[in-house]
Amino acid sequence: MTVTSPDTTAVGGRPVVPSRGKLRPLGQDEVRITGGFWRTRQDLNATASLPHARSWMDKLGWTGNFTGSDATPAHRRGREFTDSEVYKLLEAMSWEVGRGAAAPDALRAQIAELTSAIAAAQAPDGYLHTAFGRPGQPDRYSDLLWGHELYCTGHLLQAAVARARTGGGDADPLLAVARRAADHVCEAFGPDGTPAVCGHPEIELGLVELARVTGEQRYLDQAALFVERRGHRTLPRHHFGWSYFSDDEPVRESTVLHGHAVRALYLAAAAVDVAVETGDDELLRTVAAQFDRALARRTYLTGGMGSRHTDESFGDDFALPADRAYSETCAGVAAIMLAWRLLLATGDGRYDEVIERILYNVVATAIGDDGRSFFYAHTLHQRTPTAALSEDEEQLGFGGGPRAPWFEVSCCLPNAARLLAGLSCYLVTVEDTGLRLHQYADSEVSTRLVDGREVGLRVRSGLPEDGTVTVRVTKTDDQPWSITLRVPQWAVGAQLVTTHGRRQVPVGDIVVYRAFAVDEEIRLELPTRPRFTAPDPRIDATRGCVAVERGPLVYCAEAVGEDAVDLDTLRVDDTVPPVDAADGVEVRARFDAPGPDSWPYGPPERRTPNSRATTALRLVPYHRWARGGPSTMRVWLPTT
Amino acid sequence: MTVTSPDTTAVGGRPVVPSRGKLRPLGQDEVRITGGFWRTRQDLNATASLPHARSWMDKLGWTGNFTGSDATPAHRRGREFTDSEVYKLLEAMSWEVGRGAAAPDALRAQIAELTSAIAAAQAPDGYLHTAFGRPGQPDRYSDLLWGHELYCTGHLLQAAVARARTGGGDADPLLAVARRAADHVCEAFGPDGTPAVCGHPEIELGLVELARVTGEQRYLDQAALFVERRGHRTLPRHHFGWSYFSDDEPVRESTVLHGHAVRALYLAAAAVDVAVETGDDELLRTVAAQFDRALARRTYLTGGMGSRHTDESFGDDFALPADRAYSETCAGVAAIMLAWRLLLATGDGRYDEVIERILYNVVATAIGDDGRSFFYAHTLHQRTPTAALSEDEEQLGFGGGPRAPWFEVSCCLPNAARLLAGLSCYLVTVEDTGLRLHQYADSEVSTRLVDGREVGLRVRSGLPEDGTVTVRVTKTDDQPWSITLRVPQWAVGAQLVTTHGRRQVPVGDIVVYRAFAVDEEIRLELPTRPRFTAPDPRIDATRGCVAVERGPLVYCAEAVGEDAVDLDTLRVDDTVPPVDAADGVEVRARFDAPGPDSWPYGPPERRTPNSRATTALRLVPYHRWARGGPSTMRVWLPTT
Repeated sequence: MTVTSPDTTAVGGRPVVPSRGKLRPLGQDEVRITGGFWRTRQDLNATASLPHARSWMDKLGWTGNFTGSDATPAHRRGREFTDSEVYKLLEAMSWEVGRGAAAPDALRAQIAELTSAIAAAQAPDGYLHTAFGRPGQPDRYSDLLWGHELYCTGHLLQAAVARARTGGGDADPLLAVARRAADHVCEAFGPDGTPAVCGHPEIELGLVELARVTGEQRYLDQAALFVERRGHRTLPRHHFGWSYFSDDEPVRESTVLHGHAVRALYLAAAAVDVAVETGDDELLRTVAAQFDRALARRTYLTGGMGSRHTDESFGDDFALPADRAYSETCAGVAAIMLAWRLLLATGDGRYDEVIERILYNVVATAIGDDGRSFFYAHTLHQRTPTAALSEDEEQLGFGGGPRAPWFEVSCCLPNAARLLAGLSCYLVTVEDTGLRLHQYADSEVSTRLVDGREVGLRVRSGLPEDGTVTVRVTKTDDQPWSITLRVPQWAVGAQLVTTHGRRQVPVGDIVVYRAFAVDEEIRLELPTRPRFTAPDPRIDATRGCVAVERGPLVYCAEAVGEDAVDLDTLRVDDTVPPVDAADGVEVRARFDAPGPDSWPYGPPERRTPNSRATTALRLVPYHRWARGGPSTMRVWLPTT
Repeated sequence: MTVTSPDTTAVGGRPVVPSRGKLRPLGQDEVRITGGFWRTRQDLNATASLPHARSWMDKLGWTGNFTGSDATPAHRRGREFTDSEVYKLLEAMSWEVGRGAAAPDALRAQIAELTSAIAAAQAPDGYLHTAFGRPGQPDRYSDLLWGHELYCTGHLLQAAVARARTGGGDADPLLAVARRAADHVCEAFGPDGTPAVCGHPEIELGLVELARVTGEQRYLDQAALFVERRGHRTLPRHHFGWSYFSDDEPVRESTVLHGHAVRALYLAAAAVDVAVETGDDELLRTVAAQFDRALARRTYLTGGMGSRHTDESFGDDFALPADRAYSETCAGVAAIMLAWRLLLATGDGRYDEVIERILYNVVATAIGDDGRSFFYAHTLHQRTPTAALSEDEEQLGFGGGPRAPWFEVSCCLPNAARLLAGLSCYLVTVEDTGLRLHQYADSEVSTRLVDGREVGLRVRSGLPEDGTVTVRVTKTDDQPWSITLRVPQWAVGAQLVTTHGRRQVPVGDIVVYRAFAVDEEIRLELPTRPRFTAPDPRIDATRGCVAVERGPLVYCAEAVGEDAVDLDTLRVDDTVPPVDAADGVEVRARFDAPGPDSWPYGPPERRTPNSRATTALRLVPYHRWARGGPSTMRVWLPTT
């Protein structure tokens, strides 16, 4: 059965509102995170990250670039894509308003102020970008490869959609700006316009959602046109190759996600949107297969994607080095966007698994305890101690290094911020006979079933530390409906406790279907015993290693401070299962005596392990690493 | 004892002529390669690579950039460093003349023609670079970070030195250009000039050698000044970090080679030159220790250096991924330059080992069978088949991919060409009591001992395939002298056969000291049984793997064509030693059934090896890979 969503901007904030699909997403006014692991992060996002991002964008002049449309900023500042950061911030602020910000008026005032500046910078014909087209600037669309003009417009559209769905409504001034910008894009690049694409996909996502908000078929058509137009090498030749720009082969002909990870994931997400809105099941299946293969062969244990620093790209199949893992924060956000769209379209619970993995091990890892520093890339192996960074120093470029207050390329913080602010929307959906729970967090749910009956839940979750999840019915009638609970793949041996008793349940979706009573509780007990995990033997970089996971968390060995152990010589005894310990997990390990500092290759017989005694080694959740001073770290642990 | 070299330009071509050191290098007029593995490559270099490089440099306008000094080329073409490629080519042509070119007059005519063009492009004050300082061009030295001006000058000086040493003598016009350029550099950057350095070391090497040729102390002083000036972060900030530019810490304070591999190696080689000429033993020891540590922790099995694509840099200790190994051809050439200088200074045979390794496994690998295609980077693991390239298409940028006819950044071919043309100089040196043989090739040696006595040798070598080396005395008197033979580290169980009989000899240097007779022969039998080699366990990327070596050669598994095996699932039985086979080496191997195409991480018990039967798998020398069409390849072989 297919659930049709009510398609209206009035429904409280929802990032994605497909007009059809297996599942109907809930809005921010239907599900709210009330406490626990993710609420802490949402609050930090609101109180620290959003103001931090705003102050850096002001300080670096990125907001100041939005001056009157006929005036070139005296010194336009920042890279070509900085407009998009302001838009991402606006989107995050909008979801924050939708979430029920502590001081919504102040946020709305900021949104209004930025909206005014942006509106003033828009040309009469709708074109809007601060780095092109004005006197003294390069011509519009003169650098489609790197100019990021349509990319920025896409983020503008997404921001406007968020604003429209979180109180702005149809009359929101940012939505008006977005419509004018989208109309211009349709003129310039429509069937009668330039048959070109932008070097960075993103406009496609914005156009589909704007079509959903406004009902304008033209925007959807334009998105579909861009998706089909990609892959024909209309962009100029560059040494990164066309694959970097998602322009090497048509979406429909590709078998795996490849090239620049964020570009590839944004395009795939947009292709799903187009497929869903046009009823193109073949395109949907094609993209799903690309993602499947990327998950099987090109994804880190953390769910992170993209293994090459050089071009921020997916590597070859099974080329997943732990040291210098790239796994950009934005690729994590983008993979969640893709997985969520596929989940809504297909109802396949596999997508929940990867969303959970990325949330706990990429998104939660990205943001510093202060909310004012963040990882751009997520290595799984830090060989030399991370450096301490100054709080007011921008990092040039992007890439490696510890959490930094800001990067020259600072997409990751506002990207994570918009996801976190709207995170409640990823917890629960409406399916044919009831509600389906995808991710567990302390939350309140109040919505209507497909048939319009009002239902409500209160969820309590000890995750990620404790696997007890309690779902209490807070609103129901006397007719039956279903509550579908997800037993994650890691929760082998889970128990379900209902008024009918306790039973063991398999991994996958568990449907509890009956007439519930108010205050009735369902309890899911998910085992969180720490476990060893081994990689596919085709992954060369982690051969002979195990990782430790516990519940949804990946763990790591971290060496901090003066007396830090040498993680280069670590060997874990994988015959002794890991156990819970104070503030972490313990494994049995020894540290080999390092070999002589000489030519490091020789007869195998020279390489016999020594017989040092093993000791207990404490591991910590990966998302906690690099929070206590310079350290070395490794996720994959060589075995004895 | 220290041998003092006769310091004169008249002595037949020698790339490096230290004024003191443990060993005295021979010139091209003293040692000549007459046949075998390296002669084939020298001839190919002369007949194919040099004309090929010249034709590309003409076609791309790099030679044409040298126009009159007051005229800006109408459209200056190529990157900022293309001048240096013309200089490297000139240097290679000069050594080719010195080697005894088949058509020396034609080569000399080309040299004269290029020299005229270069001389015409030199400004009256000696400045010489085609991309800066003329009307419409950026100012001189306005971009020290990326401008490569002093870098290019360094190569000009090296070319002029080569020319002076291969027939040009003191009056060579290119030498005159170089002197004026060097004088200008000393003015501009001397003690009273700008206290700055170039973003790419190289000028230092050129200045020392020019000092050696001309006897000008000023050039040596300037080289020393540049070496000392580095590491103080006088270059602008860049997201690659100061380490990339060899400007993050003073040479004297560094403990390991780091940053951009070619930059680091050129600077280290120049520091050795300065240390030797100034008698600075502390500096010499410091650089030697940096190289030792790089060899122990940052060098591939092939001797290749540099593991990161992003910035062509050394990675962290033990970060040596086989897939996407960078190992630039130029870093191989540069490491030989450094090792050779350290060898001459210290007499330590360890340096011979690494020179041999790089020659057979990087340099020999770099150049295609046609002499008209070359590798820039040397991966040790090709996961997806290499693509076929068009013969007349320049590769943008640099980095990955198969051997290409040309790259936008085409340093590697002319760099290898200058090494190959002068290769005979790396075979033999004069030491206190006689001659010392470092590398074996079919060759004729005729020189004088320290005390002036004339001696001669004829060497025959079956290497790399066959380990029999014969040294016949062709000239001697009746007084004793020594012939020192190197038994490579891989040649355990070597036998020495002399007129006094046969005996087993250990690895290292074997001295045969006596009064030889003309036609007396010494035979060295070096076992070349194929062997397994294991990596230091701290190298994560190759854990659980072995490589196969035979003599000086690294071997690889290569899968070519339609029925190619899947090297992702290869497992080698390392309990069965590799054996010689027709056209290669054989190991016992099986191919595992690949796991399901699903999430690639799971419980270790799921990852049990299957029990397929092993079969024979043929391996080929690494230098032969990618010569027979698109293929996959791996050097490191997972064990069963």
